[in-house]
Formats: sequence, structure tokens, C-alpha cells
Amino acid sequence: MAGSLEPVTRMVSQLSRLPGIGQKTAQRLAYHILSMQEEDVRELAVAIYNGKKQVHYCPVCGDYTDTDPCRICADPNRDRSVICVVRDPRDVAALERMRDFNGLYHVLHGVMSPMDGVGPDDIRIKELLDRLRDHTVREVILATNPDIEGETTAAYITRLIKPIGVRVTRIAHGVPVGGELEYTDEVTLSQAFAGRREM
Amino acid sequence: MAGSLEPVTRMVSQLSRLPGIGQKTAQRLAYHILSMQEEDVRELAVAIYNGKKQVHYCPVCGDYTDTDPCRICADPNRDRSVICVVRDPRDVAALERMRDFNGLYHVLHGVMSPMDGVGPDDIRIKELLDRLRDHTVREVILATNPDIEGETTAAYITRLIKPIGVRVTRIAHGVPVGGELEYTDEVTLSQAFAGRREM
Repeated sequence: MAGSLEPVTRMVSQLSRLPGIGQKTAQRLAYHILSMQEEDVRELAVAIYNGKKQVHYCPVCGDYTDTDPCRICADPNRDRSVICVVRDPRDVAALERMRDFNGLYHVLHGVMSPMDGVGPDDIRIKELLDRLRDHTVREVILATNPDIEGETTAAYITRLIKPIGVRVTRIAHGVPVGGELEYTDEVTLSQAFAGRREM
Repeated sequence: MAGSLEPVTRMVSQLSRLPGIGQKTAQRLAYHILSMQEEDVRELAVAIYNGKKQVHYCPVCGDYTDTDPCRICADPNRDRSVICVVRDPRDVAALERMRDFNGLYHVLHGVMSPMDGVGPDDIRIKELLDRLRDHTVREVILATNPDIEGETTAAYITRLIKPIGVRVTRIAHGVPVGGELEYTDEVTLSQAFAGRREM
């Protein structure tokens, strides 16, 4: 039976290391893979490995790319005077789906977290300062998550950048569109009140 | 941003073809894979491909194996006078977890289903009859699922085998009707075996 075959246990153990995939799901996936055509399994394996191999961090913004620099950094139509700072490449993808922002990005690859021993030198803050040196950038939008680490990181970056004379803004926090007041937590409500604007 | 990179979209599209993995989950997995060490991704890809490549059907029982015949068919300690007939290699794995059964298996690789155009010649019934020819086997336990197709298949096989003089039994309906062997706990499976009745 497949469950005790070494090639299958190895497949199951590798699959179960992926996030959200437990032992049972890994077994179900492994049985499905065994039932696939060999050529299809090869395509799957190659797509996984090549996806990783051909994609790396953009040396400028830190987002994932398969070109140097990435398409956004190289795009002459993007506004080079604004940089949006995010924690993670996933955040770039989320903001690009919005289609509203036409500036550049800077991916920190983490946020400051003293609890986890992550300090300012462990994330790409120095690289951000380097990008501000030629005075092309006039605004830095801080779009880290509205949690303790995100706010700490935003505050830290603000202290570094403001003296240079670059405008520093933070994305608004409030009740999500389509959300309900009733189910919104107090901290968010409080932020939504503090950030109220004239109608 | 990674979502629009060709190597990443290919990875996402391949992952989302797996059962239970939708577009969102595939994207989450892809981002995780991008964040892994290249060596770990290689191990994952190789484990998937080799698992498929090194495992094939046992020529005797039809279960998955990486040896010829499989370990169960080759095991001199298994009782060669009893064959348990199941639909799927997953069912062998489920029954082996029960640790109660010491006979051999026969995997049909499907069940008869007129609705889907699956007839007796499309599943491994002929191979089962061949295994009964030398009169070593004295009992055939039908352990197909207790659903319409499983019962139809069990009844069909009974009609073929009973005249040969081989005892034919059906596992008891301890397995919840409409349920699947694969997801049945060991105790229920064990009771289903003990309560098997003459067909």
C-alpha cells in the first residue's frame, strides 16, 4: 500500500511542509498525484522548481521579479516621485490589484519586531534611504499593516525620513468599505473617528 | 509584482489543478514557495516527480508499489486464501491501518457505473477471476463502498464467483451508508470486517 512506500512518504512529508497542508491533505494530494499522467506530474514539478529558480528579488524595490530591475521599477510611465513602502511582496500584489497607485514600491521584507528580535537593520530600511538620495522622491507612503509591528516600523521610518525633507504619509485606517460598524473592532473605529474628514 | 510574472502564473495554474486547491490557495502556496530556499524547493519538486515515477501498479493486486509484486503480495506471512476486493489503492491503505486483515488485496481501479459508462470490462474483474484459478483462494471479501455503484459491483462479482465454489462475503454495513472507506475510522472498519456476511 502506497502509504508505506518510501517515495510516497517522502512526497507526503514534503507536501505537508507547505502552509495550510496537514498530513491528511498531503496524503490526499499524493494519491491524486500518483493517479496523474507522468507528463502532467513532470509539468507540475518543473513549474514549481522553475517558478522559484527564475524569480528573485528586484535589486531596487525588493519585489519578486524575473527581470532586472522589475517591470514596475523599469516602467517609464510610473511616477518616480512617490514610493509606497510595504512589508511583503504580497502587499505589492494587493495594491496593484487596486489599480489606483502609479508610483513605485519598496518592499521591506519584514517589519520591526523586538519580540522576534527583528530590528531596523534586519529589514530593507537602509535600501529605502539610498533610494531617496537623489531627491527624485517627494513622497513616501507608509503602507505597513496597522498592527503593532507595522506602526512601530512606520514610526521609525518617519523619524528617519522627515528630516531629509521628504513628505511621509500613512495609509488611512478605518472601517473597510462594505464592512459593518457593528462588527468593527474598537481600535479600528477609534482610528476611523480620528481620521474623519470634512464632507 | 509576482502575480503577473510568467513563471509564477505557471506555478499557480499548475498548483490550482490539484484537488481542493483553488486559485487563492495556489497563490498563497506559490508565494510560500518563492520564499523558500532553492534547495528546499528542489527537494519538493523532486519528491513529487520521483514519487510518481518510482511508483506503479502491482501486476498482481493492482495496488501502488515500487517493487514487483508489491510488498503485501510478496509477504509469505499473509494469508493467501483470502482476497479483499476494493475499488481504489486508498482503500487498501485505509484497511491496512486497521491492522486486522492479514489476507491479500485486489484493487478494481473503479466500480461499475452504467451512468458513467463504466462496465465490468473497464475494471479489474477479469484479473480477479484469474487469481482464483489455482483454487488457493477460499474466500473473497467484497469491500467496495456501500453506495449504489459499490453494491452493484459487489453483486456482479458475487454472481461470477459463487458458482466457482469460492466463499463470497461482503463487509458489514458498519461503514455509514453513503460514506467512503477512505475516510472511515479504524474501529468502524474493524467492525465492518468482523460483521461480514455470506452473499
